[in-house]
Amino acid sequence: MNEFCFADIYIGQKESFLKTITAEAENSFREITGDINPLHYDDNFAAAIPGTNFKGHISFGMLTASLYSTLAGVYLPGKYSLIHSFDEISFMHPVYAGDELTVSGEVTKKWDELGLIMVTAFIREKKGETVSKAKIKIKVLK
Amino acid sequence: MNEFCFADIYIGQKESFLKTITAEAENSFREITGDINPLHYDDNFAAAIPGTNFKGHISFGMLTASLYSTLAGVYLPGKYSLIHSFDEISFMHPVYAGDELTVSGEVTKKWDELGLIMVTAFIREKKGETVSKAKIKIKVLK
Repeated sequence: MNEFCFADIYIGQKESFLKTITAEAENSFREITGDINPLHYDDNFAAAIPGTNFKGHISFGMLTASLYSTLAGVYLPGKYSLIHSFDEISFMHPVYAGDELTVSGEVTKKWDELGLIMVTAFIREKKGETVSKAKIKIKVLK
Repeated sequence: MNEFCFADIYIGQKESFLKTITAEAENSFREITGDINPLHYDDNFAAAIPGTNFKGHISFGMLTASLYSTLAGVYLPGKYSLIHSFDEISFMHPVYAGDELTVSGEVTKKWDELGLIMVTAFIREKKGETVSKAKIKIKVLK
């Protein structure tokens, strides 16, 4: 786990990590949230939706977005992270169980008076598709 | 599960539900995300952070925010929901394991040409504190 303090952090600083979304993670996410929507487990329901091209059930957007918690809390800044807010989270492409995702973030702003940083983040699927992007405002606690 | 179609949905429509955040949910969230930050399990670490007043480890913001997935996917609009993006997610107050949360949302915009709605959402702790708010843009699939 990184332990960057506010003084260590600079504009342009980058971190990234890999994570594979699994069917087990989808099932755990369903249990802890209570989101029992069939789009996230029923392949036939998902594939039959007019105007979309899903090849089966798609993963929860908020399961993918939960990896922003890991980006902030473990990598950038790591230990002294407290997520303040998101200015944006967008979902651009479906994620399927088994997809290997690259989560990356870059420091794009520092507010010295507030001890806050902005991390602009992307999640990409192995083939290069950007599946999500976000702007994360993080309080650095040290 | 609600099954509102786009034509059913009106500005001012509201839904809400209750959910208690548990220590088991925190542990599951840690496992599926890999966010091993001590703020979310180590009571002494959390309580000792200067400038904060945490009474012990605090829950993951993104675990609380994952309840927006349930709000959209089960309640508003329910079955035909696909989250497009968030214009904002803010965290205003810590959540602790055992806290009973009320998640509520109201339709505040409809884009007829796009089949999109905006749900403005709040998560409140039992004593009335607002712990999170969000603006969720949702594609209604039917």
